[in-house]
Amino acid sequence: MKIVALAGGVGGAKLAHGLAQILPPEDLTVIVNTGDDFEHYGLYICPDLDTVCYTLAGLANPETGWGRANETWNAFQNAAKLGGPAWFNLGDQDLGTHLERTRRLKGGDRLSQITKDFCSAWNIKQTVLPMSDQPVRTIVDTDEGELAFQEYFVHRRCEPRVKGFRFEGADKAEPVPGAREAVRSADVVVLCPSNPWVSIDPILKIIPIDQKPVVAVSPIIGGQTVKGPAAKMYSELGIEPSALAVANQYRGLATGFVLDQIDSQLEESVRGLNMRTLVTNTMMQSHEDRKRLANEILAFIGSTP
Amino acid sequence: MKIVALAGGVGGAKLAHGLAQILPPEDLTVIVNTGDDFEHYGLYICPDLDTVCYTLAGLANPETGWGRANETWNAFQNAAKLGGPAWFNLGDQDLGTHLERTRRLKGGDRLSQITKDFCSAWNIKQTVLPMSDQPVRTIVDTDEGELAFQEYFVHRRCEPRVKGFRFEGADKAEPVPGAREAVRSADVVVLCPSNPWVSIDPILKIIPIDQKPVVAVSPIIGGQTVKGPAAKMYSELGIEPSALAVANQYRGLATGFVLDQIDSQLEESVRGLNMRTLVTNTMMQSHEDRKRLANEILAFIGSTP
Repeated sequence: MKIVALAGGVGGAKLAHGLAQILPPEDLTVIVNTGDDFEHYGLYICPDLDTVCYTLAGLANPETGWGRANETWNAFQNAAKLGGPAWFNLGDQDLGTHLERTRRLKGGDRLSQITKDFCSAWNIKQTVLPMSDQPVRTIVDTDEGELAFQEYFVHRRCEPRVKGFRFEGADKAEPVPGAREAVRSADVVVLCPSNPWVSIDPILKIIPIDQKPVVAVSPIIGGQTVKGPAAKMYSELGIEPSALAVANQYRGLATGFVLDQIDSQLEESVRGLNMRTLVTNTMMQSHEDRKRLANEILAFIGSTP
Repeated sequence: MKIVALAGGVGGAKLAHGLAQILPPEDLTVIVNTGDDFEHYGLYICPDLDTVCYTLAGLANPETGWGRANETWNAFQNAAKLGGPAWFNLGDQDLGTHLERTRRLKGGDRLSQITKDFCSAWNIKQTVLPMSDQPVRTIVDTDEGELAFQEYFVHRRCEPRVKGFRFEGADKAEPVPGAREAVRSADVVVLCPSNPWVSIDPILKIIPIDQKPVVAVSPIIGGQTVKGPAAKMYSELGIEPSALAVANQYRGLATGFVLDQIDSQLEESVRGLNMRTLVTNTMMQSHEDRKRLANEILAFIGSTP
């Protein structure tokens, strides 16, 4: 069974890692949001792409979910001591990734080719694709005006009230080579439990998914998110944050929906949106959790009537 | 006694540090070569400037003379693992300097202002000036063609035979603010034991030193250099490397010359170039050596007839 998984950062990376533990590598393609990418200290940084790759490579920091395990912070601390901005953490090993990516981009290489080569160096056998080689920038419209995504997300700690989103450059951005083909030949597209507004939606804006079974996993559990501002965004946009709200957002696209057992009372309503449902424990605290959830999702997909 | 010292990397930094241990901070200005500066991994790197600053701040690696003490190499090793160039060592703490300098240069700040702020953060009380805020690039003409300085010096380990030098941009580069004034109000200019061809000469091309006592310290000891390719350069340019060759190069500029005790047989010839001489132990192996040599040079200067 060939799977394409669409993923943002930590939550998406965890489910992708679970799927990677089960599927033959050639059967899993992870397409990653690049709307969060930004330039900082002159370096080109791809937070979601790096989180997915570090996680698949077994290099991720198990405490935070992002960044590298056994990381040091000497460059960052020295830069901050010299007056540099300290709001975005840059670990030393992580910096190596940004340095080499920046060097190659300046040399004219495409992000997709660089990502492919990095995956090879990190011994990642699955296919990881950034959604586009052209820059797409998520802009968050807030009560304090428009903010670049990392400015909103990290620097301002998601404090400004959200009014909407736009994806600068999305109209001109093309899917990376291989992305359309991967979707076309996939049996199912999985929308990982990533932020629907700013992780999954930018990918869907770039890569068309038509007439394909799509299984979405709710990032909202009991009205809250494990990580990140998705629930807060729903509230500020006047929508009660819930798995049902997520299902509603994917209406017409998702044919199956996975929601947490503590939200089982919402199952009927989700079915009312013309989706099959899987109710299970969707929390991924351990590596085993990732694999178990991935297994259950694959079984759910396989059970298509 | 107000001193302006012209310095390149390690040797120059050591004597500057010796002088800094004796003179009141307001009486020492170190003007540093920037012809070695280059861009690498998208970062703006100033090897000589950093060596001088790290040395004055007590942050330098005592083993190598360049780079930082207690350094880690995690960013660099990760970048190299991803296929990045590994010929120029980039320590993690050192990277912090390059990152913040690059960030500020991209923001429009001048190198001289950035250096001033970095010195303040590192608690360096002496004045350290890059020679120019405009880019000057030392190009080494060799039997393999022209090479950018770091390409010749680090990547090619000074192996190609030298035919000459040029300093790209030197004709348009201006001294940094305060450099002319520092030279004008100095009692003596000291040419540190740095490479005459590629460390001192570029500074002299930018900053005019007229009608001023100038004391030069030979970087050639017993026909060899403690570090770096100066002796090899003399040979390849058809000049026997010696303290006398250095004195000859500074003829008409230097009024005093410091040579090592093992070269005492050259003293008379140097005097014949119309220079006063100081013959002493010019090796700086310990911090005490730096201070002793600086003290002897100051006494030599003070003994002007």
